[in-house]
Amino acid sequence: MKALVYRGPGKKQLEEMPKPTLRDPTDAVVRVIKTTICGTDLHILKGDLPSVAVGRILGHEGIGVVEAAGSGVTRFNQGDRVLISCITACAKCEYCRRGMPSHCEQGGWILGNTIDGTQAEFVRIPFADTSLYPLPEGADEDAMVMLSDILPTGYECGVLNGGVKPGDTVAIIGAGPVGLSALLTTQFFTPARIIVIDLDANRLEVAKQFGATATINSTDGQAVEKVMAMTDGKGVDVAIEAVGIAATFGICQEIVGAGGHIANIGVHGASVTLHLEKLWSQNITITTRLVDAVTTPLLLKTVMAGKLQPKQLITHHFALSDILKAYDTFGNAGRERVLKVILKNE
Amino acid sequence: MKALVYRGPGKKQLEEMPKPTLRDPTDAVVRVIKTTICGTDLHILKGDLPSVAVGRILGHEGIGVVEAAGSGVTRFNQGDRVLISCITACAKCEYCRRGMPSHCEQGGWILGNTIDGTQAEFVRIPFADTSLYPLPEGADEDAMVMLSDILPTGYECGVLNGGVKPGDTVAIIGAGPVGLSALLTTQFFTPARIIVIDLDANRLEVAKQFGATATINSTDGQAVEKVMAMTDGKGVDVAIEAVGIAATFGICQEIVGAGGHIANIGVHGASVTLHLEKLWSQNITITTRLVDAVTTPLLLKTVMAGKLQPKQLITHHFALSDILKAYDTFGNAGRERVLKVILKNE
Amino acid sequence: MKALVYRGPGKKQLEEMPKPTLRDPTDAVVRVIKTTICGTDLHILKGDLPSVAVGRILGHEGIGVVEAAGSGVTRFNQGDRVLISCITACAKCEYCRRGMPSHCEQGGWILGNTIDGTQAEFVRIPFADTSLYPLPEGADEDAMVMLSDILPTGYECGVLNGGVKPGDTVAIIGAGPVGLSALLTTQFFTPARIIVIDLDANRLEVAKQFGATATINSTDGQAVEKVMAMTDGKGVDVAIEAVGIAATFGICQEIVGAGGHIANIGVHGASVTLHLEKLWSQNITITTRLVDAVTTPLLLKTVMAGKLQPKQLITHHFALSDILKAYDTFGNAGRERVLKVILKNE
Amino acid sequence: MKALVYRGPGKKQLEEMPKPTLRDPTDAVVRVIKTTICGTDLHILKGDLPSVAVGRILGHEGIGVVEAAGSGVTRFNQGDRVLISCITACAKCEYCRRGMPSHCEQGGWILGNTIDGTQAEFVRIPFADTSLYPLPEGADEDAMVMLSDILPTGYECGVLNGGVKPGDTVAIIGAGPVGLSALLTTQFFTPARIIVIDLDANRLEVAKQFGATATINSTDGQAVEKVMAMTDGKGVDVAIEAVGIAATFGICQEIVGAGGHIANIGVHGASVTLHLEKLWSQNITITTRLVDAVTTPLLLKTVMAGKLQPKQLITHHFALSDILKAYDTFGNAGRERVLKVILKNE
Repeated sequence: MKALVYRGPGKKQLEEMPKPTLRDPTDAVVRVIKTTICGTDLHILKGDLPSVAVGRILGHEGIGVVEAAGSGVTRFNQGDRVLISCITACAKCEYCRRGMPSHCEQGGWILGNTIDGTQAEFVRIPFADTSLYPLPEGADEDAMVMLSDILPTGYECGVLNGGVKPGDTVAIIGAGPVGLSALLTTQFFTPARIIVIDLDANRLEVAKQFGATATINSTDGQAVEKVMAMTDGKGVDVAIEAVGIAATFGICQEIVGAGGHIANIGVHGASVTLHLEKLWSQNITITTRLVDAVTTPLLLKTVMAGKLQPKQLITHHFALSDILKAYDTFGNAGRERVLKVILKNE
Repeated sequence: MKALVYRGPGKKQLEEMPKPTLRDPTDAVVRVIKTTICGTDLHILKGDLPSVAVGRILGHEGIGVVEAAGSGVTRFNQGDRVLISCITACAKCEYCRRGMPSHCEQGGWILGNTIDGTQAEFVRIPFADTSLYPLPEGADEDAMVMLSDILPTGYECGVLNGGVKPGDTVAIIGAGPVGLSALLTTQFFTPARIIVIDLDANRLEVAKQFGATATINSTDGQAVEKVMAMTDGKGVDVAIEAVGIAATFGICQEIVGAGGHIANIGVHGASVTLHLEKLWSQNITITTRLVDAVTTPLLLKTVMAGKLQPKQLITHHFALSDILKAYDTFGNAGRERVLKVILKNE
Repeated sequence: MKALVYRGPGKKQLEEMPKPTLRDPTDAVVRVIKTTICGTDLHILKGDLPSVAVGRILGHEGIGVVEAAGSGVTRFNQGDRVLISCITACAKCEYCRRGMPSHCEQGGWILGNTIDGTQAEFVRIPFADTSLYPLPEGADEDAMVMLSDILPTGYECGVLNGGVKPGDTVAIIGAGPVGLSALLTTQFFTPARIIVIDLDANRLEVAKQFGATATINSTDGQAVEKVMAMTDGKGVDVAIEAVGIAATFGICQEIVGAGGHIANIGVHGASVTLHLEKLWSQNITITTRLVDAVTTPLLLKTVMAGKLQPKQLITHHFALSDILKAYDTFGNAGRERVLKVILKNE
Repeated sequence: MKALVYRGPGKKQLEEMPKPTLRDPTDAVVRVIKTTICGTDLHILKGDLPSVAVGRILGHEGIGVVEAAGSGVTRFNQGDRVLISCITACAKCEYCRRGMPSHCEQGGWILGNTIDGTQAEFVRIPFADTSLYPLPEGADEDAMVMLSDILPTGYECGVLNGGVKPGDTVAIIGAGPVGLSALLTTQFFTPARIIVIDLDANRLEVAKQFGATATINSTDGQAVEKVMAMTDGKGVDVAIEAVGIAATFGICQEIVGAGGHIANIGVHGASVTLHLEKLWSQNITITTRLVDAVTTPLLLKTVMAGKLQPKQLITHHFALSDILKAYDTFGNAGRERVLKVILKNE
């Protein structure tokens, strides 16, 4: 089968690879219908993630059809249309039982990381019963792909961890796909104001269309001052960090109000300075989280009820066989005005 | 001044009464600009509430202008435009400190109950600093009147106590003003489905316009069967009781799913049968609550942000001097298609 | 093998039954080391539970050794010493994922109910990976048997659902094994006062030894008055119902203070009267729950840390072959001063 | 009257100062019976807190007798024995209503900071109704002084913010008075293990007597390794920082387990390094808090119920007139084996 393979820092190839087979009784093999590319895949390609071995098939998002199910799989049968979660959950370990399958002893984020992933014609899914979801009747396929990772990430790490409440003032720093996912799902809780901060004018325009009540282009370095002015000097109730660098985490610390929350989503490659000399007395909460994807059933309900339109996040479509081109486009997000791409296995 | 006075069961009069004066340093006297009539006022007039003495001025909702403020009032001055909360809070007692001013040792629901109320040209408000709210600049007066009682009641007793979450299925039994307030504010949390049940076709029509995803006219006694059919036999996540009789509380018990919530708002005049022989093992939660009105600041924010349109609840306008006519109209809610009336002190 | 078999209302026999075998890949067969009798078993023998078929082996508590494990069992091997949970959890269904395996679509309370139970030399445990727990090194066997059902029941249904907080006043109505389990575990949260109410002087004596700060013998019908006197007329913060009849649930309604909780544990055979005409305005919460046994890992930790001594609950020991005699003793709890019995499979 | 006055960095004097008088109607003047010295007072004396003006009377803890009460004080009368809270709460502002009087617009921590404090014969207490507590009948005076600041600080900032649960493993870094207060109150929630880390052998000995299940002397720089060994490499559920320097906050980051909490109590004078490059995916929560002292009523209940013995924290007694000597002793905590001192106004 065709698959996108990591060949070391800076190198990727569309290769012919052996089709995966069932290995454990709890495995399923899924024929991929649609998949996508994640910002994390770009990080991998830069060589930032040592856990990813050379030769690995990338990708941790997608929908498909069950091609084969192991003897221990009880909830899925061949032919079932499924949503693939980016998080593999054994459902048995201490962490899964605590509702934290991101740290599953045998799972977690392993697809396209420590085992082969979804940017291929087929993918093996361990613990299929608790790592796949049935695609609801009539669900839009493209929309469903957004539920593999990006929407639960924005929702769990940003919105839920941020404790967004009706009437709140929320700031989202970073209007990439994950930040925009937080923007869409923060509206589940009816904040009074949502301020989105980014350097990219196009993405800020998108943020407005997605429900931001204000946007700030931080190119001029005045984002903090602007937020404080908008909030009468009190700061925001919730600051969602969706970039992953020291500068944006620094903005969060400066704009969070007393009693407020900083919810970190960004993948950080370096430490940051935490201003405890100021914040020790400010009654704030800072959270970090690798997505657990435990809210996927809830998100499915909101999508099927028309309360969430994940398709808004999709800007480009490619055939899976054009994945190298898709990577080029996605890698130039600013110029290409890309949010998320859909790759179709035709 | 003119005031609507309770003269014993079945009797009310628009009378000339002495204008209230400051009694305690923490009092304010407010000139009423607009007020309204509550279903509770009808209960009082039937003689159902022995706490209400003959001679009492009724009414516990409204907006106005501070006419005089006691020496202990620090947050309001003469001339300030204010929202009057139905709950008077001393802010000092054990209950107020627990966030439960409904049970304030010196306050709680006293306006138009144990002290004179708002259906008058002037009203004395004890503990003014913590029982009044500044009217925000540019706020719609009629909308604000809905924040005195009805919206916090629907929100706190129904929605918050019900623990509504994104993706939930919520049933609201009773589409009167309070049930509709729960309907409006339950949407703060983006449930997937909101089923409204009532006997009145007009009110169900209103419920649809207000965001109900399904309505059930329970005239045929089939409401339970219909809800169970809609939910694949699982029942609802949250059942909000907004009537106050055994039959509707009974419906809640039959439609609540395992792990679900019954949030009682209704004022009950008699005991009900609780089917613990069925429910003991169903992991349900039942809550009751006299509104605390602690969410008024939050509701003000959502109104000012355009996330909540309380004006939708208002169907009729009268001059305060026409209050007897307003009571007639409000008392025939079904025929007159009344939700809430506004009485203006001209 | 020998097993205690239900032979219809009023009838039980110690019979020779076929040894269970693995049926599904996720099954384990466990050789029972120790088991016990539950009040629920007495209910079954009265014929109160139609779900229990004639011919069923009773019992849903115990510890043992894994005799055989199915191919899908990954966390246990032959020879492992295990704690058997009264709740069987598939870990995959909607309810298990919501943390509510009491309502597991394929499990829940099935042992000694809809499938054969633990009052036998061997028992088949479905979904063994998530329905058994490894016995910690050095754990006291008798103590562990109390963790199958009774302690999670008292803790989850009574203490957690009651929301016990430091400084609270807690009343426990019913000092049987489950009420005493609530008494032991309510002390996890350091309430200021724990009042235990029962009709049995001996059990009240035990309650005192177990940490009750006051006991009330309700034989004289004055329990409500006494509790109100003890609480300056304010009532209790948490009332835990551990009997399951209308009279005791009625006491809970009368003694719960404004803002308080009633946590029902009792198995009710008939409906009760709920005094909403009084309680609608009292801001109370009533909960019901079939134990989920999701706190078993936590309870294991507290036992191993010496913070909980479940052995206190055990008053009598028998050989499994003497189970009929054990039932006689347990059935005369008052006269025999029995709390829990241990049956040893020798 | 005599008072301890701040005379600039490094300088303090016991001076004759004018007796305070009522200024606002909500004030009380309290004759101090007992007070104490806080680590924060030492910080002030070093000149670290610019908010403290030269000439300020220090001290924010103590008990006393109401000498005079303003016309707006309704809950206290002359002669009432009271506990003085370190936090002054107006009870009316947005922050007080959110349960966060630490940030009260007119109060917060002002005693011995921006207004004169308790290390004097008399002290003026603004907003007396909500900043004083009646001393319970029979309460131990010395114990009560510990409830002004240190116990609510350990409990709110450390234990509650840390979310300590039964069965948890808790680490407390710093065994000074505040760390020990966290140690005493963390036991309200029955953690399985409490590991206390400090450099001072004496304080670690005290920690053991106070309920630590393990202590680590971090002099050898091996604290992290030792904690990880004790927890099978998983780290702790809750790490409570009670020192306020980068090194100890760094230990917290290294020992916190996935899904765990870091609760900062320490007053930090400089920023720290936050290792988001490691922690971004560890699902942790970091909290900061200036004590709100909203749990004082709860703590009073636990003390009166004998569940908490704050007297354990007191090692030395002085007359108020010997306060300079008391400062000397307190300032040499290690050598003098001081925890808290009591100063009596004789």
